[in-house]
Amino acid sequence: MSIIIRKKKADSEIYREALELHKKYRGKIQMISKVPFKSYDDLALVYTPGVAEPCRKIAENPDNVWELTNRYNTIAVVSDGTRVLGLGDIGPEAGLPVMEGKALLFKLFGGVDAVPLVIDTKDPEKIVELVKTVQPSFGGFNLEDIESPKCFYILETLEKELQIPVWHDDQQGTALVTLAGLINALKLVGKKKEDVKIVVMGAGAAGYSFVKFLLMYGFPGKNILILDSVGIIYKGRKVRMNPWKEKLAEWTNPEGIRGGLDTALEGADVLLAASAPGPWIPKQWIKKMADDAIVFAEANPVPEILPEDALDAGAKIVATGRSDYPNQINNVLGFPAVFRGALDVSAKTINDKMIVAAAEALARVAEEKGLRHDYIIPKATEPEWAPEEAAAVAKAAVESGVARRKVDPDEVRENTRKLVEAHMKIINFLFPDKEKKG
Amino acid sequence: MSIIIRKKKADSEIYREALELHKKYRGKIQMISKVPFKSYDDLALVYTPGVAEPCRKIAENPDNVWELTNRYNTIAVVSDGTRVLGLGDIGPEAGLPVMEGKALLFKLFGGVDAVPLVIDTKDPEKIVELVKTVQPSFGGFNLEDIESPKCFYILETLEKELQIPVWHDDQQGTALVTLAGLINALKLVGKKKEDVKIVVMGAGAAGYSFVKFLLMYGFPGKNILILDSVGIIYKGRKVRMNPWKEKLAEWTNPEGIRGGLDTALEGADVLLAASAPGPWIPKQWIKKMADDAIVFAEANPVPEILPEDALDAGAKIVATGRSDYPNQINNVLGFPAVFRGALDVSAKTINDKMIVAAAEALARVAEEKGLRHDYIIPKATEPEWAPEEAAAVAKAAVESGVARRKVDPDEVRENTRKLVEAHMKIINFLFPDKEKKG
Repeated sequence: MSIIIRKKKADSEIYREALELHKKYRGKIQMISKVPFKSYDDLALVYTPGVAEPCRKIAENPDNVWELTNRYNTIAVVSDGTRVLGLGDIGPEAGLPVMEGKALLFKLFGGVDAVPLVIDTKDPEKIVELVKTVQPSFGGFNLEDIESPKCFYILETLEKELQIPVWHDDQQGTALVTLAGLINALKLVGKKKEDVKIVVMGAGAAGYSFVKFLLMYGFPGKNILILDSVGIIYKGRKVRMNPWKEKLAEWTNPEGIRGGLDTALEGADVLLAASAPGPWIPKQWIKKMADDAIVFAEANPVPEILPEDALDAGAKIVATGRSDYPNQINNVLGFPAVFRGALDVSAKTINDKMIVAAAEALARVAEEKGLRHDYIIPKATEPEWAPEEAAAVAKAAVESGVARRKVDPDEVRENTRKLVEAHMKIINFLFPDKEKKG
Repeated sequence: MSIIIRKKKADSEIYREALELHKKYRGKIQMISKVPFKSYDDLALVYTPGVAEPCRKIAENPDNVWELTNRYNTIAVVSDGTRVLGLGDIGPEAGLPVMEGKALLFKLFGGVDAVPLVIDTKDPEKIVELVKTVQPSFGGFNLEDIESPKCFYILETLEKELQIPVWHDDQQGTALVTLAGLINALKLVGKKKEDVKIVVMGAGAAGYSFVKFLLMYGFPGKNILILDSVGIIYKGRKVRMNPWKEKLAEWTNPEGIRGGLDTALEGADVLLAASAPGPWIPKQWIKKMADDAIVFAEANPVPEILPEDALDAGAKIVATGRSDYPNQINNVLGFPAVFRGALDVSAKTINDKMIVAAAEALARVAEEKGLRHDYIIPKATEPEWAPEEAAAVAKAAVESGVARRKVDPDEVRENTRKLVEAHMKIINFLFPDKEKKG
């Protein structure tokens, strides 16, 4: 494909290899022991009669469950399969390979034990009830690939009603990593969050959260415009609105500007796009932006505008969702470390302070390596980001009073490293031949 | 404790060690990769963009989920915590150590990936709905520690409505291993199933299933009496009945015999007791039984009558639930292999033929080693039983038409061995020091 630069493999090749891998191993995750088993006498400790004792201790004080079981390190990856990748509503079974992959990433990058839970209902009330009902099994929930706008209702309701963290990665994960990248991009161009005019293209899961996170971080709503496929969202708009777009209309665009993306981009400093696959944004529109414009074009599999075209049109910094371009806004830089930090302190929720701490930690890791226009965010392959981000999240949780256990951030940093390394050692033990080849 | 023979450790010692183990490791199971991960390029195969291809294949044909994900090997261990061990209704959190232990046993003995799912509802309708809703994630369900009589309703409903196996171990697991032991006990005393008079003490989860399995295997209902704490169950009894006891009254005791256990035992060949902890059955009552009487006293932690007393009163063969006596009726001899066999053929259910095949295979493994009065059932420590039982279950599933995939029983036998060994290798890799000591 001529539109892709530095691409190693054609997509068709990747699809073929991925299918082969899934056929060969039949799934990507498995459950194993985390305790020694050296003789059958051990059964009396891990199961009856010995197991009665930890049961009694938890019955006496429910908080003991965080010390005596793997609940402190276990989350569920919950999906109804209604918005799987770019494939749409393909159902829970067809979504399972994604959820297994996500569970694997949780362990690979965060040492988190994640259980895929694909479910046979699309009813938001039933999804909420189900998650609440299985709550005693888990230390947190990662919602995944649930269509908007119902994903907003589900997340908001669960955030209120659960005693453990809940995260919708298509909302918060994308927004977290985008915010981290934006923090660094603004440093590079020497602009301040109080001043920049920001255009958000797309008012789905990601776009809605972009605005929420921007406001949370201190970007003024008066400088933000958000658009859906109909155009700029403004107070009083009648077409294709929903309660969340009504909120967006309240939070942004106080002047009630109307129009399309070309109008919105005039003089804008930042474009954050998470909309339909491209390329569809013409260079001319980017040319209308302010000097040193920042363009995040995050649609998959093809960005709204190709980086080479955006740069050619005068953008200073371009980021996409793709691994074959620089500045990849990769969700994996968020969820494993956010949960690692939250789980290490058995947090009751993931609050704004923890999210901001995560974004700032991620930005700092890149900054310490030296920011460049083609390096505003760490790559997933760099080992530092997860321990730093997890430590920052845990610290913010303790400081904001939502931690069940107070753990030193240094301990969390070290624990993250240890868990990730321990898992890699098991993989290398399981697949020694490949290790030699690699 | 003077009542226990060959006991190595006092219970208090076991409880102390068990609590230490749970504190040290904080849980007993963990999720790891089952695919190689040698470079970050692998992310494109296990996750986006490559993962879209297996998703598409499953969307095209849902049956592909059994080939392309770990669903074929994954079950949930579901409990509402209403009847945990002998501790009663201690709630879902306090039940979690048991469910983690059970999940560990599933992997240790059957190579099955099991996920604990403790749930925050006691409502049977909601439990049924929850299990049905999470069905797309799993290849089967093991219900655990759910109180009777609602466990009967839940199991029966799910057996009708699910497309995958469901098993309530407190019902079927105990009954399966008991049936296997009884098959061999009868061989030893030279009695036939058509002739023996059987008394079942206890009409809870286990007792109800004893009768179901006895009838399924061809023991005539006319020769069976079943009792609860009120006495023998008979048609027309008014006290402490429920729909399942009404069924028991239909299936057994055609003469409408009334009375207590002492009455029931007169001339009985077999006593299968799974009732209140003992010792509480006097020797005199056992003396009333027929010659070469068989006594299964399965209450925990102390049997209804101590083996030494039962033998002294004339019983020929005695079995209990305890590991420190011979002839342990140990549930672990059932569930891991039953699910191994069912999962290897992606069975739609666990039917009577599979259950009978499992019991007979288990009985055969002991018989081939040489039956003795103190050896009627394999010990969990013997390596042969799980592969043999799993192969028999898979064969019966294929022959009875409930297998989604036709797999040769020899392959299942070999696969069981391999999975169990592979997991033990990981444990030994994780805990090398202990290995040397042990």
